[in-house]
Amino acid sequence: MNNNGILVVISGFSGAGKGTLVKKLLADYDNYALSISMTTRKSREGEEDGVHYFFVDHEKFEKTIAEDGLLEYASYCGNYYGTPKAYVEEMISKGKDVILEIEVQGALQIKKKYPNSLLLFVTPPSAQNLYDRLKGRNTETEEQINKRISRAVEEADWIEKYDFLVINDTLDECVKNLNDMITAAHYSPDRQQELIHKLKEDLDLISKGE
Amino acid sequence: MNNNGILVVISGFSGAGKGTLVKKLLADYDNYALSISMTTRKSREGEEDGVHYFFVDHEKFEKTIAEDGLLEYASYCGNYYGTPKAYVEEMISKGKDVILEIEVQGALQIKKKYPNSLLLFVTPPSAQNLYDRLKGRNTETEEQINKRISRAVEEADWIEKYDFLVINDTLDECVKNLNDMITAAHYSPDRQQELIHKLKEDLDLISKGE
Repeated sequence: MNNNGILVVISGFSGAGKGTLVKKLLADYDNYALSISMTTRKSREGEEDGVHYFFVDHEKFEKTIAEDGLLEYASYCGNYYGTPKAYVEEMISKGKDVILEIEVQGALQIKKKYPNSLLLFVTPPSAQNLYDRLKGRNTETEEQINKRISRAVEEADWIEKYDFLVINDTLDECVKNLNDMITAAHYSPDRQQELIHKLKEDLDLISKGE
Repeated sequence: MNNNGILVVISGFSGAGKGTLVKKLLADYDNYALSISMTTRKSREGEEDGVHYFFVDHEKFEKTIAEDGLLEYASYCGNYYGTPKAYVEEMISKGKDVILEIEVQGALQIKKKYPNSLLLFVTPPSAQNLYDRLKGRNTETEEQINKRISRAVEEADWIEKYDFLVINDTLDECVKNLNDMITAAHYSPDRQQELIHKLKEDLDLISKGE
């Protein structure tokens, strides 16, 4: 069978608990690698180069774009953010499933370019639960929360483009389901083209008595 | 989320070990129910009505067809074989995933009628392994084995229509993968339409401050 890894793109509503899920997935299972974004923004306190981001200058970022070295990139508030291709491809060829946490537009870009990537959308079990989570953080004004909810309304229109919904109810169960989805995805016919081709070829040879 | 079960259709090469896999799946997990076929052929020694088949006469079978009481049916060698709809629907509404072991043509019929059914194709890891399994049974002539291999050549053309390949290498691992696939399938957007609809509706209400 095909022993390459899968590019796993994880999106979801702000406040759905993506970060915690991904952290636990990486802690619980050893077949995952986390994609690290490249950015031109300055590092904040506590952020490490090569851990939280690859921090580079504009020149280096644009050189990477020119060399087709990014899976996708976007610019926000005058800074570039992108996904370095080399690391992802290296890990995939080593059989690691690479986790890429990215927003909806970027996720759909990736799927278009890499049809065999797996798109997962993280959502709390209900809209009320999402609101309560955002509220419970106690870090944002009502206005900021409303902004996130409005954004969630827009994002919800894209859920159907994703391969699976990750319903973040109980963390442990959710991480297990997340891992099940990724494991299962390895066995889709699209991702087992080599095996199918070889099977057909060899069955044909045997049936002809060769 | 949607708590209905899924109709899981399992096909695969003759000799791939479908029967053993399904038996172990049902023994290891309690969320499955096995669909029992209805047939007009006479029961053989050791076969029990309601366990191996529902044994009925032609009149009863044709009455069931007329009442649209079958998911699919076919006739071989003058006998009818079909899948009673009522049992499958009852189990699915109770949240059980219903396993239906059926050949390729029937499987594709089911998928057309029930797009949310899950199609799984069981194959040994290689063509040689399939040949060795058939040979190792010591129950068939070389001619019969060749017939099965020829049929496998034809069936292999349909693998791409299936949702997942079940590669029967190590039995325990394979049953676990099989269960992972079915678990994961519950979370496809197609099978979570109710949740997605409710999420959108409620997010909309919250964003409007209602």
